[in-house]
Amino acid sequence: MASMDLRPLLQASGAKIILYVWDGLGGIPAGPDGKTELEAARTPNADRLLAQATCGLLEPVYPGVTPGSGPGHLGLFGYDPIEFQIGRGALEAAGVGFDLQHGDVAARLNFCTLDSKGVISDRRAGRIPTDESKQVVAKLAAAVKKVDDVEVFWAPVKEHRALLVLRGEGLGDGLLDTDPQKEGVPPLEVRTSDESKESARAAKVVRKVLAQAMKVLAGEKKANGVLARGFAKRPHWPSVQERFGLRAAVVAGTPMYRGVARLVGMESLDATNEVAKDVASLAAAWDRYDFFFLHYKHTDKAGEDGDFKAKVHYIEEADSAIPALEKLGPSVLAVTADHSTPSAMKAHSWHPVPVMLWARTARGDGLATFSEKMCRQGGLGLRPSTHLMPLMLAHAGRLAKFGA
Amino acid sequence: MASMDLRPLLQASGAKIILYVWDGLGGIPAGPDGKTELEAARTPNADRLLAQATCGLLEPVYPGVTPGSGPGHLGLFGYDPIEFQIGRGALEAAGVGFDLQHGDVAARLNFCTLDSKGVISDRRAGRIPTDESKQVVAKLAAAVKKVDDVEVFWAPVKEHRALLVLRGEGLGDGLLDTDPQKEGVPPLEVRTSDESKESARAAKVVRKVLAQAMKVLAGEKKANGVLARGFAKRPHWPSVQERFGLRAAVVAGTPMYRGVARLVGMESLDATNEVAKDVASLAAAWDRYDFFFLHYKHTDKAGEDGDFKAKVHYIEEADSAIPALEKLGPSVLAVTADHSTPSAMKAHSWHPVPVMLWARTARGDGLATFSEKMCRQGGLGLRPSTHLMPLMLAHAGRLAKFGA
Repeated sequence: MASMDLRPLLQASGAKIILYVWDGLGGIPAGPDGKTELEAARTPNADRLLAQATCGLLEPVYPGVTPGSGPGHLGLFGYDPIEFQIGRGALEAAGVGFDLQHGDVAARLNFCTLDSKGVISDRRAGRIPTDESKQVVAKLAAAVKKVDDVEVFWAPVKEHRALLVLRGEGLGDGLLDTDPQKEGVPPLEVRTSDESKESARAAKVVRKVLAQAMKVLAGEKKANGVLARGFAKRPHWPSVQERFGLRAAVVAGTPMYRGVARLVGMESLDATNEVAKDVASLAAAWDRYDFFFLHYKHTDKAGEDGDFKAKVHYIEEADSAIPALEKLGPSVLAVTADHSTPSAMKAHSWHPVPVMLWARTARGDGLATFSEKMCRQGGLGLRPSTHLMPLMLAHAGRLAKFGA
Repeated sequence: MASMDLRPLLQASGAKIILYVWDGLGGIPAGPDGKTELEAARTPNADRLLAQATCGLLEPVYPGVTPGSGPGHLGLFGYDPIEFQIGRGALEAAGVGFDLQHGDVAARLNFCTLDSKGVISDRRAGRIPTDESKQVVAKLAAAVKKVDDVEVFWAPVKEHRALLVLRGEGLGDGLLDTDPQKEGVPPLEVRTSDESKESARAAKVVRKVLAQAMKVLAGEKKANGVLARGFAKRPHWPSVQERFGLRAAVVAGTPMYRGVARLVGMESLDATNEVAKDVASLAAAWDRYDFFFLHYKHTDKAGEDGDFKAKVHYIEEADSAIPALEKLGPSVLAVTADHSTPSAMKAHSWHPVPVMLWARTARGDGLATFSEKMCRQGGLGLRPSTHLMPLMLAHAGRLAKFGA
């Protein structure tokens, strides 16, 4: 089914929507008694809502396709993740919470080890610890701030990874990676992938930036070189305000999720990854927005660690925050996930995620407990994640009749 | 949902996939006690796998559309049957197992009866029996072997139908049918449907071939004329190796299914339509391929014959081969069908087909018996057949994460 332009149908209703994402919620039945984490967890609040809610399963990107966190969330926000793809540099900026402006060019950097002839001996600089990497980035940030009127920003990411951002007039992002993807050769020269003068200008600046960086790093034992990948600008996407008429806010303690939400125009509220505090932050902003995206991280982390018990525990913690959200009086409260992270797989997976949509206008399914199996029987059926946004809008009275 | 290019996500995993097709499996509840054939059959092996498998219903082409065998299988192979259409001549060649080369032009022939004035009195030559038709084709094959440096091949099909193939340099397939689709008129002249010199060259050859054929047939009582339809080359499709990274093999005792599988790049293994032998053939090639398409024919035949009991019997026979397949240690074993063939309808039908996907990474549905009704409750939901291939790849660990 092609996606539909909902703008002609949008109407104000004053109704507020909460999208509560339990990251990596979905599982496979690999726990005691053949249960999934969600089946093993006690979720009295979700279960209570479920009786009057409609539920189903969402497929985040495409059948069989395992989503990264970016695509997984974009689907929930109503943005087809295949159509709306983010360049790696821009995603990295979102990931560390760097406020990428329109026109900035971002790249992902990998520190590497070069031998005396300038040949790469280790593409990941021995995966130096994040603390070491931070010190190296601090040196670079102190030494290389401006080149040819272009501002240069550096930010640490994790281990041997870092972020480079250029800010100035007329910079293009048509630049090829300098990472040769193998060892035993020197880093590649900076080259352009298109003929624009903007990309040529950016290439000239990047050459100088990297040359200066190499000098700064010369004394390092491991991280004495740097490789750049995925040059990209912030994408120009229509915001949730433009597409869905929503003043939207994000409450997410992890920079990546805030970053993705901000790419679609959500405003960022204080967040800590402590759910009670995050709900309080949301409550404090209740009057200012129509739509709240509340992100709960720990479920995914436990899944990636392969810790079934911990994931059960965190699902229960996420559930415990529901009453405080109900008290705010939302018209729609949707609980779902960006993707599955079965602890048996220790990784994200393609399995459809459970979704529960509570609203006074919902066709209540009358089901008993919030689980993958129950959701399979729910009235929302199995559908792409991108369907959730129009359904939330409808249940909030925000979509007018189509045709007479 | 638009289809997604999976190539950037493909990764080797060493995991092997078996797609086991029970042709025409789906039914309607028209048997004793209102059961379908699958419900009436004892399928202990499929039932045992089902508990740890995920299941659902597949719609082969489009809602309400009854697939032929070609489209039905293409969907299962991940090729949208509406996008990937085969010209009739090429399909006929696949159907009789003729090894159509790139550049060959194939056409479907119908023997017809002409009166003394050359007017068609019977478009199907009294539907002469296949044995008679074979003799006529043998005469043609002996008499017309080469025209203008173009090799000419003839093959019998069924009753009044035959296959014509031209092999030579620079032949086009832009030729119109010579079958006027009615009686009381003579066959149409050979004409081109485009302006290319390749089609003009082919037209010249076909005129001579048909003229020579008419002379050979002059003495026949019934089949004294011939009508040509659906001139077509073998389609240039990307193979399953290119699209899905699979070294794939087909085990199918009936030429049509082998032919369709070979059009998408599968290699053909020995097959007999005796299931134990066919499984042994598959097992013997186990190390050489990543993907095996095993075809079980008798279920469809029984459905077309309107023989409920026989279809039940053959479903049970198909089921009995499962343990031998399990012993090979596949990572994914999918059991499904190319279309439904309800014995109550004595024909292919549009009804969605049951599918069961067993894998260690499957979200087991915990359902009891393999049937249309159970599959309706399964975690795969109701979806197009084309979704099966990405799902099989995912469950085999052959698709990398999309986005970060």
